[in-house]
Amino acid sequence: MAAKRGITLYHSPASRAFIAYWMLEELGVPFDVQTVDIAKGEQKDPRYLKINPSGKVPALTDGAATVSETPAICIFLADRYGYGTLAPRIEDPRRGEYLRWMVYAASVLDPVAELHSRAIDLPGGATGFGTYDDMVRVLETALSRHEYIAGDAFTAADVALGGGLSMLLYNRKLPESPALLDYNARLAARPACQRAADATWPAQLFPPAG
Amino acid sequence: MAAKRGITLYHSPASRAFIAYWMLEELGVPFDVQTVDIAKGEQKDPRYLKINPSGKVPALTDGAATVSETPAICIFLADRYGYGTLAPRIEDPRRGEYLRWMVYAASVLDPVAELHSRAIDLPGGATGFGTYDDMVRVLETALSRHEYIAGDAFTAADVALGGGLSMLLYNRKLPESPALLDYNARLAARPACQRAADATWPAQLFPPAG
Repeated sequence: MAAKRGITLYHSPASRAFIAYWMLEELGVPFDVQTVDIAKGEQKDPRYLKINPSGKVPALTDGAATVSETPAICIFLADRYGYGTLAPRIEDPRRGEYLRWMVYAASVLDPVAELHSRAIDLPGGATGFGTYDDMVRVLETALSRHEYIAGDAFTAADVALGGGLSMLLYNRKLPESPALLDYNARLAARPACQRAADATWPAQLFPPAG
Repeated sequence: MAAKRGITLYHSPASRAFIAYWMLEELGVPFDVQTVDIAKGEQKDPRYLKINPSGKVPALTDGAATVSETPAICIFLADRYGYGTLAPRIEDPRRGEYLRWMVYAASVLDPVAELHSRAIDLPGGATGFGTYDDMVRVLETALSRHEYIAGDAFTAADVALGGGLSMLLYNRKLPESPALLDYNARLAARPACQRAADATWPAQLFPPAG
């Protein structure tokens, strides 16, 4: 199942694989797509578990490298194929903010929005991820100050965080506030984002802005 | 509050700041510690929110760079000060696994163990992070195959993931299985880990192995 050469994206429609697909489209690198049929349980097939032991999509192989967890895929690809453009260089001070928001997409945005949608709100100091209200405030503040999450320039952190945000807006798990909708609309207008949506999730993308 | 030169770790005792402290000790770089008094609410002070808008510890400044979210701090520091040793280089295939486990520490380990400890178990396919049983199986399988989480060599991913794992074991939020305890004991034996524990969380570390 693993490709020995080039990039293979392990993908399922209407999943977080959209984010990895978008990342690849932004970078303009060629890649193959291998569909993992979740309805058939292929994500739990032992062959697939060798690629992603968590049995989730997306996962990605690039030559001998294997990576999963969506922000990790974005960090990995942007360093390899967009270093100094979509990924700040290691010595660039902007790399701190960039990595913060990459991890935030997975460590805060996803779990907090998911729990809130199930009417589970844990007390702020009790967990590493804090409250829903804190998260919305943090995102709105950051996106009111800058066009993009890590500053004035679009980076791969916008793919990881913005891709998650778009899925949560679509699923009505985030408020349709101007700051979030405007950011979402800026990202949705990108041709690479549109190509990824067309290929992976045609019914998705994005609630109308404003 | 922000340091203009050198590294400053924003720290609070008995918190995830232990992990960032351990990372700095592994890298052997000099750093200052600024204590954020959570009992006094200093993590919500506007001066601190400029460093970490989420109002959590740890956060870190390194010259003009600012970073938060514990795995992001580990990725940031290891690339700057342990590139090719504690962090696989960008072109190294091992960087895929390395980044996977870095993000997994925040995207799966923390939220799933936290929810399980509150008797909240969400159905596996319903979230990005999956079930507690899946997580324990994934960790035990990975740690039975390799001495360290991303392979045969110790990397910064062991600090991010292993540091979180040690805190969860201490708080009885993970099972005391041989694979997890042995890994934990291997990490706890490291002098840098012991220095960090002595400095930040003397009562912690680690449940006795075996």
